Amino acid sequence: MTVLMSSLSWVAYQERLQDDGLVLLLPCGALEQHGPHLPLGTDALLSAAIAQAVATKVHGLVAPTLSYGYKSQPKSGGGQHFPGTTSLDGQSLSQITRDVIREFARHGVKNLVVVDGHYENQWFLTEGIDLAMRALGTTNPLRIMRLEYWDFCTEETLKHVFPDGFPGFALEHAAVIETSLMLHFYPELVALDQLPDHSPADFPPYDMYPTRTEWVPPSGVLSSAKGGSAAKGAMMAEQITASIAAAISHEFSRS
Amino acid sequence: MTVLMSSLSWVAYQERLQDDGLVLLLPCGALEQHGPHLPLGTDALLSAAIAQAVATKVHGLVAPTLSYGYKSQPKSGGGQHFPGTTSLDGQSLSQITRDVIREFARHGVKNLVVVDGHYENQWFLTEGIDLAMRALGTTNPLRIMRLEYWDFCTEETLKHVFPDGFPGFALEHAAVIETSLMLHFYPELVALDQLPDHSPADFPPYDMYPTRTEWVPPSGVLSSAKGGSAAKGAMMAEQITASIAAAISHEFSRS
Amino acid sequence: MTVLMSSLSWVAYQERLQDDGLVLLLPCGALEQHGPHLPLGTDALLSAAIAQAVATKVHGLVAPTLSYGYKSQPKSGGGQHFPGTTSLDGQSLSQITRDVIREFARHGVKNLVVVDGHYENQWFLTEGIDLAMRALGTTNPLRIMRLEYWDFCTEETLKHVFPDGFPGFALEHAAVIETSLMLHFYPELVALDQLPDHSPADFPPYDMYPTRTEWVPPSGVLSSAKGGSAAKGAMMAEQITASIAAAISHEFSRS
Amino acid sequence: MTVLMSSLSWVAYQERLQDDGLVLLLPCGALEQHGPHLPLGTDALLSAAIAQAVATKVHGLVAPTLSYGYKSQPKSGGGQHFPGTTSLDGQSLSQITRDVIREFARHGVKNLVVVDGHYENQWFLTEGIDLAMRALGTTNPLRIMRLEYWDFCTEETLKHVFPDGFPGFALEHAAVIETSLMLHFYPELVALDQLPDHSPADFPPYDMYPTRTEWVPPSGVLSSAKGGSAAKGAMMAEQITASIAAAISHEFSRS
Amino acid sequence: MTVLMSSLSWVAYQERLQDDGLVLLLPCGALEQHGPHLPLGTDALLSAAIAQAVATKVHGLVAPTLSYGYKSQPKSGGGQHFPGTTSLDGQSLSQITRDVIREFARHGVKNLVVVDGHYENQWFLTEGIDLAMRALGTTNPLRIMRLEYWDFCTEETLKHVFPDGFPGFALEHAAVIETSLMLHFYPELVALDQLPDHSPADFPPYDMYPTRTEWVPPSGVLSSAKGGSAAKGAMMAEQITASIAAAISHEFSRS
Amino acid sequence: MTVLMSSLSWVAYQERLQDDGLVLLLPCGALEQHGPHLPLGTDALLSAAIAQAVATKVHGLVAPTLSYGYKSQPKSGGGQHFPGTTSLDGQSLSQITRDVIREFARHGVKNLVVVDGHYENQWFLTEGIDLAMRALGTTNPLRIMRLEYWDFCTEETLKHVFPDGFPGFALEHAAVIETSLMLHFYPELVALDQLPDHSPADFPPYDMYPTRTEWVPPSGVLSSAKGGSAAKGAMMAEQITASIAAAISHEFSRS
Repeated sequence: MTVLMSSLSWVAYQERLQDDGLVLLLPCGALEQHGPHLPLGTDALLSAAIAQAVATKVHGLVAPTLSYGYKSQPKSGGGQHFPGTTSLDGQSLSQITRDVIREFARHGVKNLVVVDGHYENQWFLTEGIDLAMRALGTTNPLRIMRLEYWDFCTEETLKHVFPDGFPGFALEHAAVIETSLMLHFYPELVALDQLPDHSPADFPPYDMYPTRTEWVPPSGVLSSAKGGSAAKGAMMAEQITASIAAAISHEFSRS
Repeated sequence: MTVLMSSLSWVAYQERLQDDGLVLLLPCGALEQHGPHLPLGTDALLSAAIAQAVATKVHGLVAPTLSYGYKSQPKSGGGQHFPGTTSLDGQSLSQITRDVIREFARHGVKNLVVVDGHYENQWFLTEGIDLAMRALGTTNPLRIMRLEYWDFCTEETLKHVFPDGFPGFALEHAAVIETSLMLHFYPELVALDQLPDHSPADFPPYDMYPTRTEWVPPSGVLSSAKGGSAAKGAMMAEQITASIAAAISHEFSRS
Repeated sequence: MTVLMSSLSWVAYQERLQDDGLVLLLPCGALEQHGPHLPLGTDALLSAAIAQAVATKVHGLVAPTLSYGYKSQPKSGGGQHFPGTTSLDGQSLSQITRDVIREFARHGVKNLVVVDGHYENQWFLTEGIDLAMRALGTTNPLRIMRLEYWDFCTEETLKHVFPDGFPGFALEHAAVIETSLMLHFYPELVALDQLPDHSPADFPPYDMYPTRTEWVPPSGVLSSAKGGSAAKGAMMAEQITASIAAAISHEFSRS
Repeated sequence: MTVLMSSLSWVAYQERLQDDGLVLLLPCGALEQHGPHLPLGTDALLSAAIAQAVATKVHGLVAPTLSYGYKSQPKSGGGQHFPGTTSLDGQSLSQITRDVIREFARHGVKNLVVVDGHYENQWFLTEGIDLAMRALGTTNPLRIMRLEYWDFCTEETLKHVFPDGFPGFALEHAAVIETSLMLHFYPELVALDQLPDHSPADFPPYDMYPTRTEWVPPSGVLSSAKGGSAAKGAMMAEQITASIAAAISHEFSRS
Repeated sequence: MTVLMSSLSWVAYQERLQDDGLVLLLPCGALEQHGPHLPLGTDALLSAAIAQAVATKVHGLVAPTLSYGYKSQPKSGGGQHFPGTTSLDGQSLSQITRDVIREFARHGVKNLVVVDGHYENQWFLTEGIDLAMRALGTTNPLRIMRLEYWDFCTEETLKHVFPDGFPGFALEHAAVIETSLMLHFYPELVALDQLPDHSPADFPPYDMYPTRTEWVPPSGVLSSAKGGSAAKGAMMAEQITASIAAAISHEFSRS
Repeated sequence: MTVLMSSLSWVAYQERLQDDGLVLLLPCGALEQHGPHLPLGTDALLSAAIAQAVATKVHGLVAPTLSYGYKSQPKSGGGQHFPGTTSLDGQSLSQITRDVIREFARHGVKNLVVVDGHYENQWFLTEGIDLAMRALGTTNPLRIMRLEYWDFCTEETLKHVFPDGFPGFALEHAAVIETSLMLHFYPELVALDQLPDHSPADFPPYDMYPTRTEWVPPSGVLSSAKGGSAAKGAMMAEQITASIAAAISHEFSRS
C-alpha cells in the first residue's frame, strides 16, 4: 500500500485521518549541484526516500517533496555559482512551508514530521513552521517534528562508515554519506566513474560576499567521496530510518 | 537518456546548456482533491507526464515539478473545503515561480516552457513570470512559453473523446479528460470502481465567500467521469504533446 | 437619493448600516487601452455604472471604484505594451482588496458584492477576498459575492446583440459589448468615428514572455466593434443589472 | 477638452505624450469620516477637483484618483473608529503608488504631480515614490512633485478665511477650509444644516493605542466648521490652484 | 539601579514584570547627518537619554534603541544624499516595531512608551504599532503611548530657549534644540568649533523627487545652531522628561 | 579617537571614506535570556565589544549594533518562552540587514564586516546580505565578510579555556565562553553569585514545535558556566579579535 499522500484519493486520505495518530512526513530538498557523480536532485531524492522508509515503519504518509530549497552556501553546498543549483529566496521557502502546514492543520493532521535533506533549508523551514504555528494559534492540536536526517546517525554508524575517522558533517556535501545513500536508494543515478577524489576543502572561519568561488573545489564536492558504497548506504539508511521512527513513536504517542 | 534535470549532475546539465536551443520545461501542478477515483497529485502527475513526453520529442529537459498550487476554486476544482487539497497563497506561488526562473536564467537557459496542469495556477504563474522578467531586465535572452496543456486539445480530438458533444472545459475537473489521461499515464493510481457518475454541477454566474459547499457535488467531481478510457487518454496525450512540441519548435527556433 | 457611499456623511452611512440587509457594491476596474474609440477608464466606468444601476434596484450602496487593475494580458486586454495601460502588481491589488474588505467588515457590512469589470482582475480579487476572510475569521457574518458582470448575459441577450453568432467573450475586449455599454452609459466618451473594423485577433493556445506584440492588432481591439449600439447597450445593461439584482436577492436574503 | 486621462483613448493619450512638457497629476484621497455635514469621499473629491483645476491651467492631465488612503489618526482625521472610514495598510498604499508611477514612467511621462488631499497619506506616498524612483534607476527622466494642497494657502488667504485668526492646519479636519472648498466644488454634497459648531478638540502631545476615542469630538469634526462659505472656498481654490500651477511651471520647465 | 532592560537578567526582568504598573520605554532614533558639529547618532542618543531620564522618574525600564530610522527628508533631516545617513525602508521599520511590540506583549508588558527622536519615523512607527495591536487582538491588555519628545516642550520653555522668537520645529534639525540637548547629555560628542551659523533653509510648499539637493544647506543644518548651550539643554531636558513622566502617570495609572 | 560611526559627524565620516581601505563593522546581537547571571543584552554587548576591539586594530569604524535578533531556539538559546527574549521575524531581520548594507554602499563603503554575536541570526543575515548584493548589482565594489566571532577561537584557546575538554559550541549558550567574555568586557553586568552549575542540557537530534520547554534547563543556561573568569575572557578576546583583524587584513587588502 502506498505511503504517498499524492497517490491517495481525498476519500482515502480522509479515512486515514480518522486515526489521530496518523503521522504525515514532509520531505524538503533542493535542486543543487552534488558533484559530477550525483544528480542535482540528490537532496530532494534522499529526503523523500528516507521519509518513505520511515512512513512504512510508522504506518504514516508522505506529502509531496518541497523540491527547491534555500540558496546553496559555499561551505555546505558549494555555493550559488554552479549551473543547476536552483534556489529560493528565504522568504519564499518560509512562506510555502507556512502555507502547506496551515493546510495540513485544516485537514486535521495532528502529527507532522518535516524531513529536511538540504542543510541550508533548516532556518527558513524553522521560520515557516513558526509562522504557521502563530497563524494556527495555541489551541490547535498540531505538533511538528523538524529534523535533518543525518543528525540521527549514531556514533557507531559513523565509525562503520568512516573506519579512518569521521571528518565531520561540515564537509560531507556530495561526499561519502550522500554518495552511499544514493548508491543504496538510487544506484542508477550515481556515476561511479565520475567519483571525485581530491583533498577536502579548507575554509576560513568566515564567509565572503560576493562568494570567493576559488575556495570551493571545482568539482563542487567538499571532501572525497571515495569510500562510499551501497552497503554503507543500506546500513545508514536502516539505522537512520529506524531511529527516526523511534523518535516519532516516542514523541507522537504521548497523550 | 533521462529528460529529468534532477537526474543530471551539474556537469551533465552544463553540457546540455551549451546548446542555445535547449528547452527547459517546468511542470506546475497541485495537491488537490480529484474525486474518489483519482489521486490528490493528479495535476502534478499529469503536468509532469506531459512535460516529459514533450521533452522527449524536443530533446529538452524537465525541471522538478511545482507540486503545490494555488487555492482550489469551487467551479474549477471543487474548492478548499476538501481534505487533501493543499494550496499556496497567491504571493507564495508567484514568488517561487519568480525565484526558479531567475535561477534558470542565471544558468543560461534561453527557452523555458511553463507547463501548467492546474487551472487555478495560471494567473499566479503569470505574475511570477512577470516579476522574473522585470528582475532580469530587457536584455536577458530568456524567452518563456506558458501553457495550460488542455488548451492544445484540437476540436477533432474533443469530438473523438466526447462523441455526444463536449460539455466544455469548465466542468472537466476529475472528469473524462483527466481520468483518461491518468488511465493512460498512471493506470495503477486510478480507482475505476470508484468512478462517480452523477449529473454535472450547475453553478450560477458568480462566486460566494465563504464557499457555498452545497454547490459542489459531494464527490468533488464536477461532471461525470464515465466514458474515460486509457485509449482516449493515449490519443489525447499523443495529440497534445505533439502540438506542444510543434509550438515549441515554432517559437523557439526563431532567430 | 445617492447610492454612492462616498457622497454620504458617516452619520448617514451609519444609519444605512442599521439595516442588516444593506448590500454594499465594490466596483473594480482598470486603466487600460480600449482601442482608439473607447477611453482608458472603460473598465472602471462600466463596473461603476453597473454597480450603481444594481444598487438602485436593491437599495444598496456603491463604494469608490478600484480604478487601477491587474496587468493587461495580450489575449484579453491587448497587453502591457500600450501607452496608457496602468496596472498594479498582483500582490498590490490583492492587498488593497483585502484591506477595504476588512474595513467594511469593521463597519458592520454583512453583504458585499465585488463587481469586476476587468477580466485580468479576477484571481487577484479572489486572493484578496480570501486573505480578508482568513483575517476576519470564521465567525464574522460578512458574506461576499464576486462577479464579472458579463457572465450574467443570457443566451437570449447574446443572440440579440450578435445576430450573426456570438464569437465568445474571449475576444470581446473593446469590441461590441463594451462599445455598446459605453454608448449607453457614457456616449460622450465614445469616438464612433474611430471605431476599428478589422478581423479578430487569432491567438495560439499559449502565451509568450516577453509579449509577442505582433500577435495583438495595432488598434488594441481584439475583434471588430462594428455592430455596437447604444440600444444594444441599454438592453444588455438592463438585463445584466436585473439578473445581478436577482442574484443578490437570492443570496443575501437567506437567513 | 477633458483633462481626465481616463476619458482619453490610448491613441489620444499617446499623442499628448509627444509633448515632453506634459504634466500628469495623480490625486490621492481617502474614504474617511468628515463630520455630519461632509461626505466620506471629501479628500478624494477635493484632491481631484484641485488637480483638475490645476490641469486646466497647465494644460495637463489627471490620472484616476487613489480613492482609499492611509489610516485615519485621531488628531488629524478623527481616527479609525468611525464607520465609513475605510483605510489601507501603509504597505498597500506605498505599493500602489510605486506601481502606478512605474507605469507612468513606462508610458514616457516626465513630469508627475502627486496631489495629496489626505494628511495621513503623506509618508506612505513618499515611500511609494521612493520605491518607484529606486526601481526606475537614476537615468530615468521622470521628475515628481508631491504636495499637500493646503500648504499652498498663502498667509493672505488664511487671513481672509479666518478673520479672527487661523487656528492652524492641525485641527482643520472637516472644518472651515474643507467645508468651504466643498461648498465651492460640490455644494450639493454639503449638509449645511448639519454643520457642527463645538469648541475645538484639545489633544495632548502624544498618541495612545488603542485609540482614546473620548479625545475625539463625537461629530468627528476637530474644530468648528462655522464660518465656512462657498465664497471662501472659491477664493481659496483660485489662489491654491494658481500657486500650484506656478510651482509646476517653475519646476518642470527647467531644462 | 539600572533602567536598561538589556542590563537585566531574564530573572530580574521577570521580577519587574510582576508589577502591572511597570512602564517599558522604547527609544527610536536614526543614523542621520546632523551637521558638522553633531554626531550621526544624535537622534538615537537623544531618544535614549530622554527615555532613560523618564524611566528614572517613573521607575520604568528602557528597551534597546531602534538605532536606524526611516529615510531622511530634505525639509526635516536634510535628505538621503548625505554620507552617513543610513535609513530603513518604511516596511522594514514598521515590521521591526511590530515584532518587538508583539514580544513585549508576550512577556506581559502592559504599559509601553515609544519615544521617537527622529521626525521621519513617526508614521512608520504608527503603522508598526497598528500592525502589532491588530495581531494582539482586542483583548490584550497592552496600552501604548507614542510620542515625539520635542512636542512636550512648553511655550514657556521655548520662550526661554529662543528669546528672539521660536522659528518653529520645522527647521530645528541639528539646530538650537538638538545642539543644546546634546551639549547637556553628551558634551564630548559636540564639536562646538564646527557650529554652522547660516541663514535658515527656505523650502517651497512641495517636495521634488529626485531630491533637489540644492535646496538643502551644504552643512546639512536647516537653521542656525548658534544660541545652543548646555544650560538650555539641561532646562529643556528637565522640563520635557518631567512632562513625559507626568503624562505616563496620567495615562497608565488609569484603571 | 572614537571607532563609533554614530559618534562621528557626517563630515568626519566622509573624510574617513576617502580611504578606500576603510573597514566598517556591523555588530549583530539579540535581546535574549542568558541565564540568571548574564544580562539580556549579552549578544549585542559582546558583538559590539568585539567589533570595537577589532576596529581599533584595523583602524576601522563600527556602525550601530542591530540590537534585536532572530528567534531564540531551544538548543542554542533556550527558546522563545523566556520573558525578556525579544526577537524579530526572519524577514524583518533580513530586510533591515539589506537596507543598511544598501545605504553603506551608497556612502561608498567598500569593506564591510558583519560581526554576528547571536547564533540564530546567521541565516537571516546571510539572506539580507544576498538581497543587498542582488540589489547593488555585480559592478558595485562592496565586499562583505560575515562571521560568528566564536568561530575564530583556536584549538589552543579552547584547550586553555576548557582544561577538561571542550564540550562543543552547541551548548555554550550563557556558559563558560560568554560568561568569561562578559566578565572581561562588562564585569559590572555579571551576577557571579547567580552562576548556575547544573549538568548540560541533553537534546534529541530533532526539534519539536510547539517548543518542548521541559527540554531546556529552567535557568536558561545550556551547560555549566562554572569555570568562567575574566582572565579567560581577556585571553579569548585578545586571540579572537587579533584573528579577526588578521582575516580582515588578508581579505580586504587584496587588490
